[in-house]
Amino acid sequence: MQRTLIIDTPKNIGKKVTLAGWVNVRRDHGKIIFIDLRDRTGIIQVVFAPNKKNPEFQKLAETLRSEYVAQIIGAINERPKNMINEKIPTGKVELLAEELVILNSAQSLPIDLNAEHLDMGLETLLDMRPLTLKHSKARAIFKAQAEIVKTFYEFFSKNGFMEIQAPKIVPEATEGGSEVFSIEYFESKAYLAQSPQFYKQIMVGVFERVFTIGNVYRAEPHDTTRHLNEYTSLDFEMGFIKDHTDLMKIITEWLKFLVEQLSANCHDELDAYGVPLPKILDDIPAISFPEAKKIARKISGKETDDLDLEPEEERILSGYAAKELNSEFLFVTHYPAKKRPWYTMPDDADPKYTKSFDLLFRGVEIATGGQRIHNYEQLVQSIKSKGINPDKFKFYLMAFQYGMPPEGGAGFGLERLTAKFLGLANVKEATLFPRDMKRIDLLLHKEKIIKEEKK
Amino acid sequence: MQRTLIIDTPKNIGKKVTLAGWVNVRRDHGKIIFIDLRDRTGIIQVVFAPNKKNPEFQKLAETLRSEYVAQIIGAINERPKNMINEKIPTGKVELLAEELVILNSAQSLPIDLNAEHLDMGLETLLDMRPLTLKHSKARAIFKAQAEIVKTFYEFFSKNGFMEIQAPKIVPEATEGGSEVFSIEYFESKAYLAQSPQFYKQIMVGVFERVFTIGNVYRAEPHDTTRHLNEYTSLDFEMGFIKDHTDLMKIITEWLKFLVEQLSANCHDELDAYGVPLPKILDDIPAISFPEAKKIARKISGKETDDLDLEPEEERILSGYAAKELNSEFLFVTHYPAKKRPWYTMPDDADPKYTKSFDLLFRGVEIATGGQRIHNYEQLVQSIKSKGINPDKFKFYLMAFQYGMPPEGGAGFGLERLTAKFLGLANVKEATLFPRDMKRIDLLLHKEKIIKEEKK
Repeated sequence: MQRTLIIDTPKNIGKKVTLAGWVNVRRDHGKIIFIDLRDRTGIIQVVFAPNKKNPEFQKLAETLRSEYVAQIIGAINERPKNMINEKIPTGKVELLAEELVILNSAQSLPIDLNAEHLDMGLETLLDMRPLTLKHSKARAIFKAQAEIVKTFYEFFSKNGFMEIQAPKIVPEATEGGSEVFSIEYFESKAYLAQSPQFYKQIMVGVFERVFTIGNVYRAEPHDTTRHLNEYTSLDFEMGFIKDHTDLMKIITEWLKFLVEQLSANCHDELDAYGVPLPKILDDIPAISFPEAKKIARKISGKETDDLDLEPEEERILSGYAAKELNSEFLFVTHYPAKKRPWYTMPDDADPKYTKSFDLLFRGVEIATGGQRIHNYEQLVQSIKSKGINPDKFKFYLMAFQYGMPPEGGAGFGLERLTAKFLGLANVKEATLFPRDMKRIDLLLHKEKIIKEEKK
Repeated sequence: MQRTLIIDTPKNIGKKVTLAGWVNVRRDHGKIIFIDLRDRTGIIQVVFAPNKKNPEFQKLAETLRSEYVAQIIGAINERPKNMINEKIPTGKVELLAEELVILNSAQSLPIDLNAEHLDMGLETLLDMRPLTLKHSKARAIFKAQAEIVKTFYEFFSKNGFMEIQAPKIVPEATEGGSEVFSIEYFESKAYLAQSPQFYKQIMVGVFERVFTIGNVYRAEPHDTTRHLNEYTSLDFEMGFIKDHTDLMKIITEWLKFLVEQLSANCHDELDAYGVPLPKILDDIPAISFPEAKKIARKISGKETDDLDLEPEEERILSGYAAKELNSEFLFVTHYPAKKRPWYTMPDDADPKYTKSFDLLFRGVEIATGGQRIHNYEQLVQSIKSKGINPDKFKFYLMAFQYGMPPEGGAGFGLERLTAKFLGLANVKEATLFPRDMKRIDLLLHKEKIIKEEKK
């Protein structure tokens, strides 16, 4: 008999169905056994009443434990009015079990998956990731994350962007610097891409508008709540722009669509975290870097580096935008040319600054973007001005020799975005299998780390 | 004035519009200059007639060369009946230019982008990839490829699969063997994932049905028409299956949807290659490995390895299926356990064989899949039977300790699939930026390679 999904049980009252899923919990009440059965669509109560024709049936049901996998045939009944569970969509029905097949057993759980929260430290949570991901609040995170990716995919497809596959093995460190992982590539050395930057720009010369979703790598030796060594970047790049403000406009449109879709499709997931969705203004406020710096300094009272924003300043500016500008999103534009990559378009009014931006949301930078230099000679000059030999980028530069329109783009960190939408304290909670200095799935040098901690 | 896309010009007859794009070609007829302007949506003829008010205008138009990027304001006119170009959707209109802004220039092209084919060897084609990708036949490949990815995304989303982000930095070589790239990971060694296998299986324990699209890595030192060292894998994995035939069913449904969508949305792209779309039977023929081996041997007359199919045998079987079974797709099932990874479910009837399959299409394997072992003890035994210490896979095995349903899945090679749909001779043609032993964008050791070839 074909499987019925739990979400469809209320449509099958009085009918015999086959359900399959995991045992959430078992409760014995005298001779009657109750279990909550869970599948990908919902939870339903299953009743095992004594069965005279088959006395083994009850004994088998007694062996069920949390996370056992079972297939159960039975009839869907309405529950008495005073027994309806209003909290779940299938709360007004139950399954009266007639046949039970145990598809797989489970060892006894070291944690309570039915607790409202998993009360454990992040490292322990990650040590047991294949188990802790089953908790409803962990599942909520990754359902919301899948929704973010889906809206990105849909929105940019609808707006004429072509999806592309960008390579991750690259011959040079894209953004410069030492924070890049190296690979033994046959007889050569290669690197893991820090972004799809060069390839998405090349593809603007081909398709005008492109987007790409994929992993990027940063070998930063930082263990913070904001950093990951491997993360998913949502990237787009578009030709025929006036300047960076065209990019800010399309980002605003996507964010509106995203919030709309999250509200429609992830209601329960957002509810579990109790964090309200942000309001997206028609014009997300934008302040220039020098202005932002002034505001941050005034609030913090601290003199900081003139070329970039400190993490604390990003938090301050986010708070300022929420309070004074009525927006949880804030564009900071015109970053200093010294701190931006050599492909960034300088500002006409003052070439010490650039036509670039960061997007801040709830205290962190969730996107970086800007207009790029599209003129071949200007680009070669810009590379040289950083003391780099342009021959290193011969392949990339070819795209600019044969007609590149004025263009730009941006990249979003998927995990940061997810974490901020749900109010998670650490970006690693919004990463299925986070990689950091100490961990790839499990700790890399457990003995060594324990020893160091003891010192 | 807002930009009008070329595809929308026939709706704007008599109106003044702004177009922007690339110069495909310029033709001078006496005092009148014609160019074909191309944007992401189409091509239109632009007419520059002498302009008395602005004599410079004509001189500027004369400087236009192929791949120059231009913005042109003018009026959309209907072309005389005898001048209509039936081959393109905008062939019945033209733009009478009034204003011209050159947004970027281009160097003179070393190839003719307007030729029907680019008549050059694959290595030269790849050396100039940022330029050669602009050819309409190259663009056709990657438009079709984006469509394949899109249908995969849509089909599996619609069928209750959750999209996940699988990590690519892994602590062990997934499929075993030495053909894996290693990374310097801080003070450790790590590897590039050969597939998202472990992670998609873990996630079946969480979400029941998942899919993931991403790069995978094979350090195979082969330079063939079928191999890539970095490719895109379309992966799905699902719980609560009866056996591998459930997977074959859902693959068949996806392929039907894919062919339908390609037919609807990539008509011109397929036409350019003149390769008809395959017909997907309601039941794609499936033959067991021993049977397939018998057929291949009978046709080839060659005795080959008993444990796997040779590339030549895959070609023979594909031809056989097309001719005798009326299907360009063929499932070969029940591969020998010795040649399949340790997580593969053995066949009940004869455990020397497995509940696995390859999918052949037009001569090559485009997908591999099967049911996996879901019982923890059986899985540990299977690892041990290969002489491997199960402690290596402690993290992965955790998913099987806490209730894994009967499950399985498959992975498709995106580039192979694309190449076979369009009839391309080499999978590298269906890869935007292919990585092979000798090449990452450009050749890695040009001098060395030239020297070796001279020897």
